[in-house]
Amino acid sequence: MSRYLTTTAATRAALEQARARGLTVGLVPTMGALHEGHLSLIRKARADGGVVIMSIFVNPTQFGQGEDLRHYPRPLEHDRDLAAAAGADLIFAPSVLEMYPEGYSTWVDLEGLTAGLCGRSRPGHFRGVCTVVTKLLNICRPDRAYFGEKDAQQLVVVTRMARDLNLAVEIVPCPTVREADGLALSSRNARLTAEQRQEAPVLYRALLAARELLHGGERDAAVLDGTVRSVLAEATLGRIDYVEIVNKADLSPVVTVRGECLIAVAVWFGDTRLIDNITLAG
Amino acid sequence: MSRYLTTTAATRAALEQARARGLTVGLVPTMGALHEGHLSLIRKARADGGVVIMSIFVNPTQFGQGEDLRHYPRPLEHDRDLAAAAGADLIFAPSVLEMYPEGYSTWVDLEGLTAGLCGRSRPGHFRGVCTVVTKLLNICRPDRAYFGEKDAQQLVVVTRMARDLNLAVEIVPCPTVREADGLALSSRNARLTAEQRQEAPVLYRALLAARELLHGGERDAAVLDGTVRSVLAEATLGRIDYVEIVNKADLSPVVTVRGECLIAVAVWFGDTRLIDNITLAG
Repeated sequence: MSRYLTTTAATRAALEQARARGLTVGLVPTMGALHEGHLSLIRKARADGGVVIMSIFVNPTQFGQGEDLRHYPRPLEHDRDLAAAAGADLIFAPSVLEMYPEGYSTWVDLEGLTAGLCGRSRPGHFRGVCTVVTKLLNICRPDRAYFGEKDAQQLVVVTRMARDLNLAVEIVPCPTVREADGLALSSRNARLTAEQRQEAPVLYRALLAARELLHGGERDAAVLDGTVRSVLAEATLGRIDYVEIVNKADLSPVVTVRGECLIAVAVWFGDTRLIDNITLAG
Repeated sequence: MSRYLTTTAATRAALEQARARGLTVGLVPTMGALHEGHLSLIRKARADGGVVIMSIFVNPTQFGQGEDLRHYPRPLEHDRDLAAAAGADLIFAPSVLEMYPEGYSTWVDLEGLTAGLCGRSRPGHFRGVCTVVTKLLNICRPDRAYFGEKDAQQLVVVTRMARDLNLAVEIVPCPTVREADGLALSSRNARLTAEQRQEAPVLYRALLAARELLHGGERDAAVLDGTVRSVLAEATLGRIDYVEIVNKADLSPVVTVRGECLIAVAVWFGDTRLIDNITLAG
């Protein structure tokens, strides 16, 4: 069984005790609705040793107006069982008021890195992410924090933020976990209709098509972009939000693929927005 | 002698050693050009025990366009001697590049509390303050951080920020230190001409006149404001930037003085801007 905590004070105290026993701390921040992707983060943290704490908090400040905050799934009991089975020692599941008390006024934001990709479609999203991650890092003071590569922009943003704010934490990137047909795991997949679900693997197929073209010698980002779009067009129920090929270090758009680049896509299926990405080593 | 540190890594390591010996940490963040006000913070930190670290960093991001960043005094050798004599164990004096490395992108900002008072005259100032204080708190992880009451808005902003971001630090307010004639100590006083210096104590006189009126039973903020302005008008070389009477907890303007309020003034003498404030217990 994992220990279940809802207050900042109790969480700090539990982690202080662990540190006093010489243990390091690994944090897995989540919004719950756990799937195999989240569990892979816990297992990685478990393998790295020390105390593993998973936070479950559906952070309201990273949802935009009209986004799915109210209907975001919150299967807390089930999440607790899954997290415990995967090896979490502590679960920190605070209330909104515990995280954002009366008179809450402070925001952490990034310039530049949040302008494109998901930041363009979701204004304010990364301000909410950066703020809540800073808070979680300050509460837990982990040695390591684990983030999935599926949220590629979030990973780059959080890594830069931790460096900039001198947070003494190692941000550990973890590979995207996929269904057998290639669809990246996401809590939002559950909202797809059967027809949408059948088409959804097109994101990964499109990314792989670009990689194959690159391996064949094509480095022109516009050509690769065109290929991705033409594969995505096979999904008649999907509507492209973005296709971007960017430098992996600073997320700036590239004209020619050289060094480590990221090719990232977002596609709407009805009112469900799916994202995916792969690294291109040019 | 205090130990002199210029890198984040060396500072972290020195403080980790101290903590391993069971010592607490007190941080006194400054921009150098130390005067008796700063030294009173060091002495307070010294009296509270543990290791005392003073940071000296003229933070470029809290200066506005056209403000006095370039000419801000940097008497580093003298500061080191003064800080050591007052009881600082460690001095952390990083370069601008150490604090803001290439690609720096992250900002901490507050809503609401930074809108009035100095925030109105100095757009972006508190964003710079909040960002650098967050960084210093993360580097030093102090148990206590000491701030002067002279910068009243900064004290309220930093206290709220530390709470909001779950920084495990006690923000310790320290009383304003004054010259014999009442002028609040400030590194900027040195820039006054002899005539300006002679008139400068008018700020404190004006604040005391308001307090006297309050003690006589006057609670109307407009009347108290008028009195402050008429006393300030005695200084023919001064130009009022603001006079504000605000709630001490959230800095919101008050119509009637009840509970703990702050009366704060800012006055330009030539291109030197002086500030001062006192608490009114209504």
